[in-house]
This record gives sequence, C-alpha cells and structure tokens, in this order.
Amino acid sequence: MRDVAIIGIGHTKFGKAEKTQIELFAEAAMQAMEDAGVDRKQIEALFMGSVLPMFEEGQGMTSAYSVSELGLGSIPSTRFEGACASSTIALRDAYMWVGSGQYDVVLAGGTERALMMGTPFATRTFAMGGHAATEGPAGLTFPGVFAMAAVLYSRFYDIPLEKLREKMAYVSIKNHKHGALNPLAQWYQKYGNLKVEDVLNSRMIADPLTLMDCCPFSDGAAAVVLCAADIARRYTNEPVYILGTGQGSGGALARLEDFTKPASRISSARMAFKSAGLSPKDIDVLELHDCFTSAEIIALECMGFFDWGEAADATEDGQTDLGGKIPTNMSGGLIGKGHPIGATGASQACMIVEQMRGAAPKGNQVDPVPEIGMTDTLGGDFGTLGHIILGRSRRGK
Amino acid sequence: MRDVAIIGIGHTKFGKAEKTQIELFAEAAMQAMEDAGVDRKQIEALFMGSVLPMFEEGQGMTSAYSVSELGLGSIPSTRFEGACASSTIALRDAYMWVGSGQYDVVLAGGTERALMMGTPFATRTFAMGGHAATEGPAGLTFPGVFAMAAVLYSRFYDIPLEKLREKMAYVSIKNHKHGALNPLAQWYQKYGNLKVEDVLNSRMIADPLTLMDCCPFSDGAAAVVLCAADIARRYTNEPVYILGTGQGSGGALARLEDFTKPASRISSARMAFKSAGLSPKDIDVLELHDCFTSAEIIALECMGFFDWGEAADATEDGQTDLGGKIPTNMSGGLIGKGHPIGATGASQACMIVEQMRGAAPKGNQVDPVPEIGMTDTLGGDFGTLGHIILGRSRRGK
Repeated sequence: MRDVAIIGIGHTKFGKAEKTQIELFAEAAMQAMEDAGVDRKQIEALFMGSVLPMFEEGQGMTSAYSVSELGLGSIPSTRFEGACASSTIALRDAYMWVGSGQYDVVLAGGTERALMMGTPFATRTFAMGGHAATEGPAGLTFPGVFAMAAVLYSRFYDIPLEKLREKMAYVSIKNHKHGALNPLAQWYQKYGNLKVEDVLNSRMIADPLTLMDCCPFSDGAAAVVLCAADIARRYTNEPVYILGTGQGSGGALARLEDFTKPASRISSARMAFKSAGLSPKDIDVLELHDCFTSAEIIALECMGFFDWGEAADATEDGQTDLGGKIPTNMSGGLIGKGHPIGATGASQACMIVEQMRGAAPKGNQVDPVPEIGMTDTLGGDFGTLGHIILGRSRRGK
Repeated sequence: MRDVAIIGIGHTKFGKAEKTQIELFAEAAMQAMEDAGVDRKQIEALFMGSVLPMFEEGQGMTSAYSVSELGLGSIPSTRFEGACASSTIALRDAYMWVGSGQYDVVLAGGTERALMMGTPFATRTFAMGGHAATEGPAGLTFPGVFAMAAVLYSRFYDIPLEKLREKMAYVSIKNHKHGALNPLAQWYQKYGNLKVEDVLNSRMIADPLTLMDCCPFSDGAAAVVLCAADIARRYTNEPVYILGTGQGSGGALARLEDFTKPASRISSARMAFKSAGLSPKDIDVLELHDCFTSAEIIALECMGFFDWGEAADATEDGQTDLGGKIPTNMSGGLIGKGHPIGATGASQACMIVEQMRGAAPKGNQVDPVPEIGMTDTLGGDFGTLGHIILGRSRRGK
C-alpha cells in the first residue's frame, strides 16, 4: 500500500436544498476539484455514499448519474450504502483503490436529501438501517435507540437520569455553539448560546432525549479529491494524508450484550488506530457521529478517548471542547452542522482537513493547528462503523 | 497488485424463495465457504450487492446483517448498489482489497428477492436504475429500453424487424435450452425445446419483445470466496484466477448518441481485456447480461466478439452456442437461469467457475474445459457496467 492524500474538499451548505441530490453532489465535487486544482479529465473513478435516493427522488445508482452530471466520461463509479456511514465507507474504499496503485486521482463523497422528505417519512425510512425483522415490528426508530442508550448508561454508571440529562445537554450546547459559527452548518448563526435549561426544556422526542438532544434532518453533499501521496504536492501545499482506516459490522440490537459498548465500533476504531500505528492520545481533533447527545458520549468511550462511564462528566468539564483533552465536533457535528446521511462521513473528513489547514471558522479552529485528526461515522444502530485517521504529515507526528 | 483466486462458490436455486434475502445470502455464502473449505473465522470482510432490499423487505444495510447472520463477528462489510450489476461491482472491489494485500480471504456475492414483489411493483422499482428525471416522467421501463434497442438495431443494420425478431428468438431458444438443463435455474426442466414460433407468438411485452424475449423476475443469492492466489492451493485443487476486471458508467439514455453501442460497456470491456492482457478471441466461455434477447446481441458486439451488426446473424448460425465461436450463457443466462438482480453478477462468476471445473451440467459444459471465461453485467440502461475475466491458470493460456 502506498500513501494517499486528500488534496481537495467541497461541501454544500447543509440545510434545505432546492436541488436534486445529484446536483448537490456535483456542486460539492466541482468545489473539491477546483480546490485541488485537478481537471475532470484527471478523475479516474468515483466512490459515493447515498442512502435513500430511491425514496427521496426515485433514483437508484446515483453514482453513475453523478459521473454523467459532472462530465467525467465513462469512468467507474460505485454507490455505497452503509446507512449513515455510507460516505465513510466510500472514502475508505477510494483510499484502497488509490493506495493499491490502481488509480492516481479519484473523487469520493456523498449526498442526501432527507430534510425535504419531512420528518415522518424520513424517520420511517431511516429506520430501515435498523434490523427489519426484529426492530421494525417493535416500532423502534433511532431516537428510541439512543434514548435507551442513555437510560442504560445512567443505570450502568449509577448516574441519576436527570443528572445525566444535564451532562448530555453540554454536548448539545458545545455542538450548537460551534455549528452557529460554521457557515456550512444548517444551524449557522442559530442556537449559539444555549443553556442547559434550553436543552432540557425543549420538546420531548424520545424520553430522555429532547429536540435539542437530536441532530436535524438535512439536505447536503460533501466531496474530496484523493490522490497518491507522492504526487500530492503537485496540486497543493497542504495535502492531508490518510494514516489509517477502520470498518466494522454489527447485527440486530437484540444480539448485543450492551449497546453502549457495541463491538462494531470498538473493533473499527481499533483497526483504524492499529493501521495508523497511533492511539487516542495522538488525536488532536475529532469529528464523531453525534446523531444524539447520548451517541457522542458512548462514541467517545468506545473509541478509547475516555474510560467507560467517564465521557459524560468529561463533556460537562469541557474536555471535549477547545482547550480540552480532545476537541470534538468543532464543526458543529451532526447536531449543529446537520446530518445529510449519505454525505456525513465525507463532511467529517472535509471538516478535519479544514482544521488541518488552519482554515476553520474563528471560534472553531483548534490551536495550534492540529497535526492528527480522526473521523467516526455510525450507520444504523451500530450496523456499520467507519473510522478514518488523517495527518498533516505522512506518518503521524 | 498480487493475483487473486476464487476458491469457493455457492448458489441458491433461482426462482421463488420463502426466505429473507439475508437468509438466501447466508445459504449461498455457507455453501461457498464449505466449497472452499474455509472456516468462518478466516473470512476477513464481506462485499455484497443488493439493489432493492428496502422495497422488498424494508431492510437497508443488508451486508452488515448478513455478517451477523453468518456469525462472522464484526468484520467490515459493504453493500454495493449498481442496479443489476451490483454484485459484479462487489466482486471487483473484493478483488482489489485482496489484490492490494489488505485481506487474504474474503466473501463476496449478492442477493435479491424480486419475484415476490410481483411484476408491477418490481417493474416500477427496477426502473429506478434508469434516469429518474428524464426517463421516469416518460414512463420508460427496461422492457421498453430494450425494445427500442431492437428497433434501432433493425434500422441501423437494415434488417427488417420481423427478420430480426426471428434472429433474436434464437437467443431465447439457446438460453432456455441451457437453463432447462441447469438445476440452479428458475426454468430448470422447462422451455428446453422452444421453437422460433413459440418465442414470436408468446405474449407481447414491449413491441417487438415478447414474454419469451425477457428474463424473469427472480429470488436468489450467489457467493464466492476469494483469496490471495499464493495460498489458493491450500484450499482447492481447482482455483480460478481473476485475470482482469473492468467497470464503466453511463448517464441518461437521452445523452447517448446510439444506445446499441453504449460507451460504458465498450469502455468497461476494454478495461477488462487490457488489464488481463487478453482480447475477445482468448475467451472460451462467456456469461453475459441477457436481460432481453436484444440485450445479448448488442452486448456481444460491444465487447468485440462480433463486428457491429453481425451478432444477430451469428446467433442464428449457432456461433454463440456449444461448438460455436463463443459459447454464451451456457448456464441459461438471465433468460433461462433467472435474474435476482443483486445476485446476478456473482451468479455469472459461479457459472464460469463451474465451467472451468468441468462441472457444468451435461449439455451445458464447454468441451474441452475452458481455460478462460468472462462475465458481463449491466446495471440499469447502461448506467453501470462490470466485466470480470477468469482463468484456470494465473496469467491466461
């Protein structure tokens, strides 16, 4: 395997879009190609995540039609579906094809138009990322899964649920604070000054999660241009290198012994750290899958940033904000920036690259400029997990 | 890139299944693992095609739930959607991950349960593999696409349509003859002795295509175990090597100058031949995407087995049957064996492996046992194309 670099990023403003998801992806991809300074004739393949295009627009095979929309000729294109982790899986696959020497320059990313579906239909179709045979008949949707996770967490660690709700509120406060500063975020210039009470008293969605504990439905797309590390400096003075990746699979929730510690995430994060030769202490900035506030807390522990049962306290203490142990979701995360599911993994990678260029919005930039960053993306209720570790230099610090 | 071999195959009987698509896939995968003599602990990743699981069973991320169903732990699993070419894309990706040295032993394949949807819903959902914005409002479905292809072919090559219909009928006669001999086929022991009149006089579906010009809707799954070529003989005396692959993308039909010569297929086939260092004359047996009789004829020409305008005559002359220039769809193809869309590409690879083991059913086996075989899989109306070239020895003849 040769080294691989990200040389260009593109990202639509998340929120409500009046474009098809192929047009959204084309917008992000054109930005990424322009950012990288590559011509479309140089793109050898497309790797793309998109989850529900058949429900959103009656369109399958969005990857092929994106190639056509972008005028990329007849190049190979592949659509990946791993629920909300789809574009992380796409990026990881693109990385392998370039790393193996098969291609030199490729495009990867994702797109989704979930907001325009409306909440009832989006919730129901999203739930197909869960296990249909056992979770479908039970009426379980993702707010319910992460509400249960919060209750389990409260019991395992003997934290009264009301206390835990306050601690979880700090995830929402932090992520909204940073989302409000990010012009690409769905909640840009909104909810920047939440108080604990604002979160606790907002509308109850799935007890104990209120509306402000949840990420929104979103339309949006994100894309990156990847190339062989050896040629990256032809295109940019600021390549960001892929140092390691991980991926894991899980089954029905009912088969998990403890879904605050899903094996798929633990295994995927370990794979990423091992392949990079790094550990959590090496990570300077993190974008993780905060679909709900409880999700951020359990993710931090599964990845090894905090011991079991300690991430809720650490969040309240500011350890996951700027100046803390591990600045997490400085882009606003899913809660503040939005969650166009097929685009989320690629968006996280774009946000880490922005941090590593020192180009994050004021108030969100980690100082000093981070050397190593990581993304964590969750599909379904732990069915698919993906991790990517990125560095400003080719082999870590 | 190191060499990669197929060491095990598994294939459900195509037709109507009283199992979920995950159960179907597990059946094929268990067969493939048993055939390869590998334990499930050795499987390092799963690559799986499945097209419409959300419509068929309300289940996304079928790859992850297949890992769980098979008891494969938390290994990475990826679902690919490229319409009817999905599992060819999955196999090609699996090939790259093993070829790059990242994994030694992996599982790849596909599954679908389209028959149980019923024809109206299946037709409508399949059509999402076409271009939604332009072909959807026109009411175009795939029988219509390949009916138009037949009409275009008739005009381009000045073959009266009634004459062309007779020539096309020989595709149906041949593929049904071989399907009737294949115990895995949906039409096993049926339609083995069709006459031209039987095809011409069956129910009209999309003029000039009758029912017998069309492949059926099918439920089924197919799987292969891939490993590094260097370790293949630990598991089997009959490894089959992947010599080359290709993939291509196309856009809306309206953007194609001539859709009897789609650039995506021409480019993908050329990529496969180039990567294998081979040409059409080297291929001893071919499984191609005969979703309709007209589709087989244009595929043969796009891949270079016959000159433009000559494949219809060649078919009538028996050049695509046993003893002819290029025995094509000796398994029955999509028309005789069935077409569970997400499984079709993997099924084609299984059928080529069977041929190379000299294990095809009597009356279907190419004699002498073929040294080099090829698969051609089409997704949508030329949106995604995939090709795989397989050999009994590591570098061709």
